[in-house]
Amino acid sequence: MTASAEEREARAALSRLTEPGRRNLAQAVAQHGAVLVLEEIRSESDVLGNRSDLADRLRGLDARAELDRAAEQGIRFVIPGDDEWPSAVDGLNDCGQVDGSGGAPLGLWARGPLRLDEVAIQAVAVVGSRSATTYGTTVAGDLSARMAHEGWTVVSGGAFGIDQAAHRGALAEGRTAVVLACGVDRAYPIAHQRLLGFVAEHGVIVSELPPGCTVTRGRFLTRNRVIAALSSGTVVIEAALRSGAINTASWTNELGRPLMAVPGPVTSAASAGAHQLIRNRGAVLVTRGEEVLELLAPMGSRTLDEPRGAESPRDWLDPIEKRVLDALPVRRPAGLASLASTAGLARPRVRRSLAVLEEAGFAEASEDGWRLGPLGRST
Amino acid sequence: MTASAEEREARAALSRLTEPGRRNLAQAVAQHGAVLVLEEIRSESDVLGNRSDLADRLRGLDARAELDRAAEQGIRFVIPGDDEWPSAVDGLNDCGQVDGSGGAPLGLWARGPLRLDEVAIQAVAVVGSRSATTYGTTVAGDLSARMAHEGWTVVSGGAFGIDQAAHRGALAEGRTAVVLACGVDRAYPIAHQRLLGFVAEHGVIVSELPPGCTVTRGRFLTRNRVIAALSSGTVVIEAALRSGAINTASWTNELGRPLMAVPGPVTSAASAGAHQLIRNRGAVLVTRGEEVLELLAPMGSRTLDEPRGAESPRDWLDPIEKRVLDALPVRRPAGLASLASTAGLARPRVRRSLAVLEEAGFAEASEDGWRLGPLGRST
Repeated sequence: MTASAEEREARAALSRLTEPGRRNLAQAVAQHGAVLVLEEIRSESDVLGNRSDLADRLRGLDARAELDRAAEQGIRFVIPGDDEWPSAVDGLNDCGQVDGSGGAPLGLWARGPLRLDEVAIQAVAVVGSRSATTYGTTVAGDLSARMAHEGWTVVSGGAFGIDQAAHRGALAEGRTAVVLACGVDRAYPIAHQRLLGFVAEHGVIVSELPPGCTVTRGRFLTRNRVIAALSSGTVVIEAALRSGAINTASWTNELGRPLMAVPGPVTSAASAGAHQLIRNRGAVLVTRGEEVLELLAPMGSRTLDEPRGAESPRDWLDPIEKRVLDALPVRRPAGLASLASTAGLARPRVRRSLAVLEEAGFAEASEDGWRLGPLGRST
Repeated sequence: MTASAEEREARAALSRLTEPGRRNLAQAVAQHGAVLVLEEIRSESDVLGNRSDLADRLRGLDARAELDRAAEQGIRFVIPGDDEWPSAVDGLNDCGQVDGSGGAPLGLWARGPLRLDEVAIQAVAVVGSRSATTYGTTVAGDLSARMAHEGWTVVSGGAFGIDQAAHRGALAEGRTAVVLACGVDRAYPIAHQRLLGFVAEHGVIVSELPPGCTVTRGRFLTRNRVIAALSSGTVVIEAALRSGAINTASWTNELGRPLMAVPGPVTSAASAGAHQLIRNRGAVLVTRGEEVLELLAPMGSRTLDEPRGAESPRDWLDPIEKRVLDALPVRRPAGLASLASTAGLARPRVRRSLAVLEEAGFAEASEDGWRLGPLGRST
């Protein structure tokens, strides 16, 4: 199924004329269709100069030509009604509201072979600080590689630090999607030109902004809601207390999706935001990909064994032997009577157990009695 | 108030004859008194050899002489009914049950000037791995110093690693209590002889075990319940998945006291236990002393401001200026018309705001228009 050409052109025009994240515009478009909304703008007269000159700018705009030019560059504009529009997950259709912004995107400009509807079925956002530490980038890379290996698309913002590590880790094992705060034809940051080129070949680059647009602070913030909305959940790794990653976390909470955070040293300011999310914003502490899968995978499809300490030699002993082992002093040897009393067992039983324990290295015999042997001390 | 000499002697005798943590013994003593329970033991005939030879051992025991000898060494035996018994906190009178052990201590042998009832009013347990990392011992020392500075007694087990760091940090700023798994006259581990000597002079050393007793594995585990019960809450810093600190955490949960854990790098096995406690055992993630105080201090006596990112120069701007700032491109300059459209503001307003932003270094003017200035890029 494909949306009508008229609706696509109208949405493309609106996408060029307005900033992303205007909630009332999104609602008007959802209710009346982009064609009608555009008609209204065209007839609008701007008397007081207090509103933007939309009608004027609209006159100089040829949306059809723009869509054609984009297509020549391998860029498509995906809108509701298209097969590729991720309708299976409803987040994109109502992103909620953070700091006054929100609303469904008018459409998503996309470059790369990966389809957006396929991305949205199994996607996880991995986001964090641009000024990440080696610890953060290592964890982000490993976790993302693991998620990609399990068939999940890793969604992030293409920035330095955690984003970069997440995309790289995912590319090594599977699929990734970059959501930009500028046009998908641009390389931002410029240092990531090769990374973005690679994603355009093997994954997908996505943006609400039409080709040619540059980044602004506001666009970073509304971009974050697309990262959150395309993903089944968000993992924050290293984030300052005020940061884009915390903003993405807010969108995730607003969308009612699982929010996760990876802890780090409490002495590292880079992890302060992640700790704050766990303490005060309901984020689940995760330490590895398996724990993310446990939270995101459909109910029952994957359950996680709680990690246990390595099996200890102590586990081989029977209950009586364990009691005797527990009664053995660490340093000064104890006699049979004392051990029997401490263990609350008859002396013959204690003597039999001691033979087993000594044989196995749990107990050490001397003239004065018994004490813990080398194996006993190590467990 | 002081308990009767008879009851104290009977409890001292039982403390010598039996291992700590026998729940049914504790219940019998609480119900009938130690004198009566001792009478029963004295008359008990051990026919099958299946039980310990308590009656025999009791015959060779002179509890009064033992209490006198202890007193000569500066050791007192504090029991329920004494002013010093921490009755204000009821944990010591019913420790619950972990792995089959539990029950109130028969009494606590104590050495040092700090009174147990005073300890228990404001005490926090700080426990963790013996094979701690530098990260762990640094955090334990800082956090304990902070708690001690605020008038809290830091309770721990006197072991290597986290325990040692906690006691040292607390001693530097205030009070600390060591709970041992052997007699309070012994130095365990021997390397901590000086530390323990210092605590005996300025804090208090506590044990359920009478003077002279050595440590056993079982005694470590029951000792942990005394650490938990003397404290208003427990902070775990670095703990392996199977460890004494996890055991102390279980006692804390069993007692219904707040359990806290300090996170660390997920790449460090030393922090695996702490992360597990946060994920699965209801431990609250804490990163510093203030957050521990927030949880333990009596309701309303202390509220904690959420840490915020440092105030940014952006906070000085008015809402219109912020909108214009948000519209500024990072790299390629934009003209007035484009900025006005992006910001959704009239051109005269944008021009006025740009003047302010340029003056402050937020915006940078060029022939082609405006873009973010150095201050704008840094915030």
